[in-house]
This record gives sequence, C-alpha cells and structure tokens, in this order.
Amino acid sequence: MDTPLDRLTEQFRRLPGIGIKTARKLAYHIVQQPQDKVDAFITAIREAKEQMHFCSICFNLSAQDPCPICSDSRRDHTTICVVETPQDVLAIERSGDYHGLYHVLHGALSPLDGVGVDDLRIKELLQRLQNTEVQEVILATDPDVEGEATALYLARLLKTAGIRVTRIARGLPMGGDIEYADEATLAGAVANRQEM
Amino acid sequence: MDTPLDRLTEQFRRLPGIGIKTARKLAYHIVQQPQDKVDAFITAIREAKEQMHFCSICFNLSAQDPCPICSDSRRDHTTICVVETPQDVLAIERSGDYHGLYHVLHGALSPLDGVGVDDLRIKELLQRLQNTEVQEVILATDPDVEGEATALYLARLLKTAGIRVTRIARGLPMGGDIEYADEATLAGAVANRQEM
Repeated sequence: MDTPLDRLTEQFRRLPGIGIKTARKLAYHIVQQPQDKVDAFITAIREAKEQMHFCSICFNLSAQDPCPICSDSRRDHTTICVVETPQDVLAIERSGDYHGLYHVLHGALSPLDGVGVDDLRIKELLQRLQNTEVQEVILATDPDVEGEATALYLARLLKTAGIRVTRIARGLPMGGDIEYADEATLAGAVANRQEM
Repeated sequence: MDTPLDRLTEQFRRLPGIGIKTARKLAYHIVQQPQDKVDAFITAIREAKEQMHFCSICFNLSAQDPCPICSDSRRDHTTICVVETPQDVLAIERSGDYHGLYHVLHGALSPLDGVGVDDLRIKELLQRLQNTEVQEVILATDPDVEGEATALYLARLLKTAGIRVTRIARGLPMGGDIEYADEATLAGAVANRQEM
C-alpha cells in the first residue's frame, strides 16, 4: 500500500541520520499539524533553497554574494582558513577566535569515493591566492584519512607557490569531525596551528 | 544573523526528537541538494498533507474515506481495537495477528495536560457501537498512566452499554509506547487480552 504518507516517510528516510522509525514519526507528525504550520515548513525549505547560494569567492553558503564574511572589511583578509564544508565554517565561527577569511572545498580528496582534485574548489583557491594579499593559509580539513590527505596535497601545492601554510592543531581526536567539536577544542586547535 | 538557512534550521528543530545539531545538519543538507530533490521533498509534504485525512468512521489517517481497513469486508467487523494514535494502528497491523477494525482516540485522558473526555474521539466510538454488529472492544491504549486511565474510563462506560470489553495484555513494559513495541510482543499482547 503506497500512500502519500508512505512517500513522505520515504523522503524523510533519505535525509542524513534519519532511520525508518524516525522518518515514520516525522511523516505522521507533519500530516497531523495545522495547515499553516505545514505551509511555514514548506516555505522555509523553498526559501532556503532559493536564497542560499555559494559565495563566488569562498564558496560558503550565503544569502548574499559575496558572503558577509568575504565582504567584511574588519576581518583579516591576509589569512584564509580552508575547510571541507559550510558547516565547518559555522563551527569555527562559533568558536569565536578566528577573524580571517574562509575557503570551502566542498569535500576532501577520496580516490575510493571517486573524489579527485577537480571535484573540490582547489582551482578557485589558487586563483584567490594569485590576486590577493593573502599571507597564510590555515588547513582546517577534518583530522581523518581524507582530510589529512587533502591537507598534505594542498600544503605541497601552496608551499611551491611561496605561501605560509599551517595545519589546524591536532587537538581534535583522530577520526573526528570538525562540525561536532566543542568550541574550546576548536579555538585551541586554531591557536596552536603548526607550520607544514 | 537570521538567514533563510537559520529559519529552515528552526523549522526542523520544531519536529519531534530533532535537536539543534540534527536540525542544522538537515537544513545544510537540504539547501545543498539538487533542485529536483528539494522539489520532490516539498511535493511529498504537500501531497501527504492534502491527501491524508481522518477516516470518518475510525479516525485513522487515510487517503480514502472510509479507510481501506473500515471498507474491507474480509475483516472482522465485530471487533474494534481502540488505540491512541494512527501510528499505533500501523504498529498493530505490522504485528499481523489482528483482523478486526480500529478506533483512533487521538490521545489519552490527561487532566494535567488539559486533555479531557471531549478532546478524544470517545463520542464517535459510542455512536459506532450503537449502529453496528460490534461484539468486542479491545482497549489498546498505551500501558502508561494516561493510557491506563483512558482504558479504565472506557471499560466502565462500555460495560454499562453491555459490550464485551478487553484490555490488551500487559506483555508490554509499563511506561512503554505501543508504537515502538516489537511485532512478537504486540501479537502476544493482542492474543492474551483479558476481560475487564
């Protein structure tokens, strides 16, 4: 029996971290909500998808282009922090100690998953470094296998271009995930970054 | 900074069982999905809300009225299983051993939460019993304080009307939730129902 409720359950089940029981609970919850609450949910999804785009400079998600961080003249435009995802930017911003710019790669090198150099925003990072006053690039990819490989690759690439390259300190546990680190650990890791 | 992404995060956070970190992950996931996938998600929400209604007989959620269970002549129309939520109907149907009809109360008596007799579909249950060949009502409200109180109230009410009233067996742990019980426990509990 394939009802509209089953199809909504299936849509929820495709979201990351949502299993079949949670998906079912969410679907039943939605159809029993008043129409105005369902409309507000749909509007929020539609507007977020319509209005959030990648900043043409740093490729972070933003409703403006350039994003508020890239266009903020009070920030330190001589330092770029390279991260894997927009969520990582949010996590480092919440730690409150970093005042430079960002560059979002949108992934990490992973040959087994078919993610190569051309699938990440690496070319765009190199272009930014040619045109600006950047003095330091902080590599803040995740401290797991793919993130380490990406950091090593970028470190070699950027040092031949004569730029200071640092790696966020291994204050995070190996195999961890930047997005979920606590603020103090993240702030310490940025402060203790090391030459590569 | 209140962006469309923040507003979508807030909408996800209002769903049951979704905390702030999961809400953020889901919002970032949605806006980075291709447009056609976001459209499919919105369509599933809209269609489920538009097409799923309460059956005018049993008040279960259904895309048809009467629902497929109420209009199935092969089912046992002499037995009605009274449950708190549509999810409970789904759980008992999955257990596979029950072939009668249902009646969804949409809650349980809870004076502290302001849920009284008139807030549940109790009047509609009594009307069903007047007009049909029903011989037994199985009370399958949750085995917690509110569910037990609701079962006791209904048992007294229905026995004065001369109907056989049974309670689903206490195979489920006290304080539990019918929706999440495993199939075997549920099937056993229905089989071992006792006179009240």
